[in-house]
Amino acid sequence: MAINVSVAENASTSHAMPMSGTGVLDVRLPPPITTAKKLQLRLSEIFFPDDPLHKFKDQTLSRKFVLGLQHFLPILQWAPHYTLTLLKSDVVSGLTIASLAIPQGISYAKLANLPPIIGLYSSFVPPLIYSVLGSSRHLAVGPVSIASLVMGTMLREAVSEEEQTTLYLQLAFTATFFAGLFQASLGFLRLGFVIDFLSKATLVGFMAGAAVIVALQQLKGLLGINHFTNKMQIIPVLSSVFHEENEWSWETMVMGVCFLIVLLVTRQISIVYPKLFWISAAAPLTSVILSTALVAFLKSKLHGIQTIGKLPEGINPPSANMLFFSGHYIGLAIKTGLITGILSLTEGIAVGRTFAALKNYQVDGNKEMMAIGLMNMSGSCTSCYVTTGSFSRSAVNYNAGAQTVVSNIVMAIAVLITLLFLMPLFRYTPNLILSAIIITAVIGLIDYKGAYEILKVDKLDFLAALCSFFGVLFISVPIGLAIAVGISVLKVLLHVTRPNTVPLGNIPGTHVYQSLTRYQEAVRIPSFFIIAVEAPIFFANSTYLQERILRWIREEEEWLELHHSSNVKCVILDMTAVTGIDTSGIDLISELQRMLNLRAIKLVLVNPVGGVMEKLHHSNILELFESEGLYLTVGEAVAEISSSWKAEP
Amino acid sequence: MAINVSVAENASTSHAMPMSGTGVLDVRLPPPITTAKKLQLRLSEIFFPDDPLHKFKDQTLSRKFVLGLQHFLPILQWAPHYTLTLLKSDVVSGLTIASLAIPQGISYAKLANLPPIIGLYSSFVPPLIYSVLGSSRHLAVGPVSIASLVMGTMLREAVSEEEQTTLYLQLAFTATFFAGLFQASLGFLRLGFVIDFLSKATLVGFMAGAAVIVALQQLKGLLGINHFTNKMQIIPVLSSVFHEENEWSWETMVMGVCFLIVLLVTRQISIVYPKLFWISAAAPLTSVILSTALVAFLKSKLHGIQTIGKLPEGINPPSANMLFFSGHYIGLAIKTGLITGILSLTEGIAVGRTFAALKNYQVDGNKEMMAIGLMNMSGSCTSCYVTTGSFSRSAVNYNAGAQTVVSNIVMAIAVLITLLFLMPLFRYTPNLILSAIIITAVIGLIDYKGAYEILKVDKLDFLAALCSFFGVLFISVPIGLAIAVGISVLKVLLHVTRPNTVPLGNIPGTHVYQSLTRYQEAVRIPSFFIIAVEAPIFFANSTYLQERILRWIREEEEWLELHHSSNVKCVILDMTAVTGIDTSGIDLISELQRMLNLRAIKLVLVNPVGGVMEKLHHSNILELFESEGLYLTVGEAVAEISSSWKAEP
Repeated sequence: MAINVSVAENASTSHAMPMSGTGVLDVRLPPPITTAKKLQLRLSEIFFPDDPLHKFKDQTLSRKFVLGLQHFLPILQWAPHYTLTLLKSDVVSGLTIASLAIPQGISYAKLANLPPIIGLYSSFVPPLIYSVLGSSRHLAVGPVSIASLVMGTMLREAVSEEEQTTLYLQLAFTATFFAGLFQASLGFLRLGFVIDFLSKATLVGFMAGAAVIVALQQLKGLLGINHFTNKMQIIPVLSSVFHEENEWSWETMVMGVCFLIVLLVTRQISIVYPKLFWISAAAPLTSVILSTALVAFLKSKLHGIQTIGKLPEGINPPSANMLFFSGHYIGLAIKTGLITGILSLTEGIAVGRTFAALKNYQVDGNKEMMAIGLMNMSGSCTSCYVTTGSFSRSAVNYNAGAQTVVSNIVMAIAVLITLLFLMPLFRYTPNLILSAIIITAVIGLIDYKGAYEILKVDKLDFLAALCSFFGVLFISVPIGLAIAVGISVLKVLLHVTRPNTVPLGNIPGTHVYQSLTRYQEAVRIPSFFIIAVEAPIFFANSTYLQERILRWIREEEEWLELHHSSNVKCVILDMTAVTGIDTSGIDLISELQRMLNLRAIKLVLVNPVGGVMEKLHHSNILELFESEGLYLTVGEAVAEISSSWKAEP
Repeated sequence: MAINVSVAENASTSHAMPMSGTGVLDVRLPPPITTAKKLQLRLSEIFFPDDPLHKFKDQTLSRKFVLGLQHFLPILQWAPHYTLTLLKSDVVSGLTIASLAIPQGISYAKLANLPPIIGLYSSFVPPLIYSVLGSSRHLAVGPVSIASLVMGTMLREAVSEEEQTTLYLQLAFTATFFAGLFQASLGFLRLGFVIDFLSKATLVGFMAGAAVIVALQQLKGLLGINHFTNKMQIIPVLSSVFHEENEWSWETMVMGVCFLIVLLVTRQISIVYPKLFWISAAAPLTSVILSTALVAFLKSKLHGIQTIGKLPEGINPPSANMLFFSGHYIGLAIKTGLITGILSLTEGIAVGRTFAALKNYQVDGNKEMMAIGLMNMSGSCTSCYVTTGSFSRSAVNYNAGAQTVVSNIVMAIAVLITLLFLMPLFRYTPNLILSAIIITAVIGLIDYKGAYEILKVDKLDFLAALCSFFGVLFISVPIGLAIAVGISVLKVLLHVTRPNTVPLGNIPGTHVYQSLTRYQEAVRIPSFFIIAVEAPIFFANSTYLQERILRWIREEEEWLELHHSSNVKCVILDMTAVTGIDTSGIDLISELQRMLNLRAIKLVLVNPVGGVMEKLHHSNILELFESEGLYLTVGEAVAEISSSWKAEP
């Protein structure tokens, strides 16, 4: 068991604290640095973990300027190397996503209770801005379902889009402005980690809940109901559907269900055979054209079918004059902006990262946030509502072979042509087709595979997902989201509030100490009780840890009594996984030392990590431990202490 | 460097995952248990960390019944063994704290804007109830300054105690009821860890801020000002003091300042010579008697001095009929109850634990919460407001030699006698003496030594204390408290959101791997890059960790290039301190494996702890690592992989 470790004592360079006899490795303090330097390191770790300036190192001034420009306008990075081959791919993919973006734009605008034309406007200006500022090559920018849904819900609770049309529009643009401002600020202040607090489990539950609500709401269009609830919870929506039975229009239903089936089948085909992605990509536009033609030719015979109606021609009118920054509704606008902003940001960043990882390039989260934020701020001045990178359209973009953001420019041009010349064609487009398109799109948000994976790995995560799902369904979208975030944060706090404590034993013939329950061959060392604490020790868990460690010792003593073994004479605290400590944690250790001392038990600390060691040192608590209370490994501690016992009479 | 470790392969009992060649120790899964069992273990760890039922183990049924009764009524534990010697000590200490409790009770009631008599009522019923239910032997129960201050502030913001006297009283009793209900529920639901979220730093700052505000407010009484602000922030209080200069009464000032100096000097004497604790304990009552006598005899000559006036005689009238559970003010009552409840609970539990630790007995936090909660609920029905264990009086109680809670009963009897027979004596007691008593009491709440200790150990903790201090001073008491709790929680979240990652090196001649920056003799192993992650990996840090680890590898490669060393061929992730993982964390590992694989770098995991190992296993991610991706120690991983490289051509 004896371990012979020796190291050259080098007093001049080391900040060692010689604790045990010579020949045993000392536990070191980290190299001393000033508080200011420490703060600087800490802040750079918080705000610049990716070290964004590393490419500027060792460059000439002019090169630094070029790099800086390229940093803020990524278009300058790729534009000089742009080739005809790339353009060919981008045109194909751009036209493909345009064929999706036009029907989806109109549909999602309806989801936000906005005039359909706003959806088209939002598919024109934002993609152009993103193509200059954005660093993802595959993001297809435009309105998305979740943000549209949330904006529609939140605004409609205060203002009716039918009775107060102008106010509703003003609110939508103002909320979009604040969403953009919030997004850009997060990026500028490098607080991008805020969106990390939406855990995967939270998002899976939230998106599935939102998808169910949205799909059910579309029954309005699909069944041809005129009087529908303004509420977003499942109960009023369902009761609306079945209460207004007399409004159901059979023509609408038959046509709607047929198109829905076609769309779902094409979607399924593209899932099974990814190479046939273009089938599902082309289906929405084809359905719109077909259904519009049907309604136009049969308008004398089909009565109950509601259509979009006349849409104005021409590009985005300016809307900066519709923004407001005071008054009764400003609070609502800011709140809606914050929530839709963070949701659309989460989607945009996740989509960008996914496709960047597939093609092995880096997307800088904070830069992307600024791009998306600026895009929304400009959008709010040009009659656009909240936009971001859409998951479904970006996937189509990627599959269609997009190489750069030029595909977004191509898409914008296609939308421009539509806005200028093709608007009269939408006159007879039935609402039911928009509902069918929305249902098909949101079904993709229900990630049952992801949910199953979560269930398999972590039951508590699954619970968070479920709460988020039912919170959205039964209470409301923002509250469902708040519940889910709350549970995620609570889970983290609980993890640190009730950390694991693991009694260790030696694995015979080795110097390895491992969990007694996990390794059945691990054996107790007589007279020693070795326990590992697996969390930072701080105010929220120091009381618990004190109780728990004392209970471990009590249980150990009972066990020893039962087995007629010798008493515990030394408790070894393995602090390898104690990644931090605060003043309450330090109190715990001195308290524990005092209490064990009264019972003639020695307390020894093993391998405190750098930061912890430093704080123990500053608090002078180490003086309590006299000359031998700190070791680098459990094995060393056991060997040293046993031999010191033997040396005693 | 080669490590020869061998262990008997015992396939029948082990849940081993043979990952590397024979002769090397396997990384194990914890023993398999069902989800229900796991949930049970987890819940018992959350709610019953102290295993309160362990004393019931292996007992007969009748014994269990007795133990159970004793558990709920601790009085049954000590009453049978109570002796005359104990009684003698308890009578002395009980009378000592009574002499403090009577003047403090009257003063603190004034702090809560309640009639002084309520303070005496609150020093009579609650101590009696606590003596039956409570398990601390030294807690002196009664009104305390912080809870009184907070209740006074919160209620006065909505209701004026002068104009709506009855409503104010109703609100105070109802808030007390809710405080008790909340405290008892926390104890009953074993959610006592909620109070752990008030970290030491938070409390130091909060109490100091509250003490300053309270002390300044007492200038009203000390200067004899009639028109004083209702607000609690420092600016209105100070402007009130200097704005109403013409109301200053010189008689009040001279007398007040003299008594204040006497009280402060006696307090200082007791601090310097702890054996003379009785000097500061007797001072308040003596001052009250002296000042009352002075005012009574000189009343014809002293005009400006305000007195308490006539107080009703007799014991607590019932007040259950004054509680209300609906109406406009119910929200305020609940909010006030919650905040004063949690604050008084924190003080009571901390005081109980402090003195229990000094005398080496255990105080069960959850049981104490139920005792304090039930005491406040009964108090609210007998004209008492929020009470708890007072720090200052408990310290006197302890120093005066209290042995059991009988000292509380003695104190209650002394208060009873006062209520029945001595009330007319208070008629001429001047308000200024109450102010002087409050100032002397709250000065003890400013823990500058604690603040200095915090500053020395942890600058960020000190910042939390400062925020809490200034929040209370300049904004408001509840908001200051909220800011402090928020900062504490944020600190925890930040710690896990931006965890340390430490590159490790081998200490030559040993199998120990330690931080390269902390141990200068630690050396890199050629072709290996070893990095330790010091936190659970989960949604809030997985993005950061991915970026950070990739940056470490990039920096390592730059360093190697500079030193013309061989490239990194293997990255070893030391997971000893990764105490937990969730689905996002698992995604990180598979993503990292994929990205490193593309660059022909091998990724190896070392020593995942029990829970993490289990989740890695369930997620099937280990299949990515083929046959050799998991080792028990860094040394083993390095040895095995190097030898496998040598074996290759």
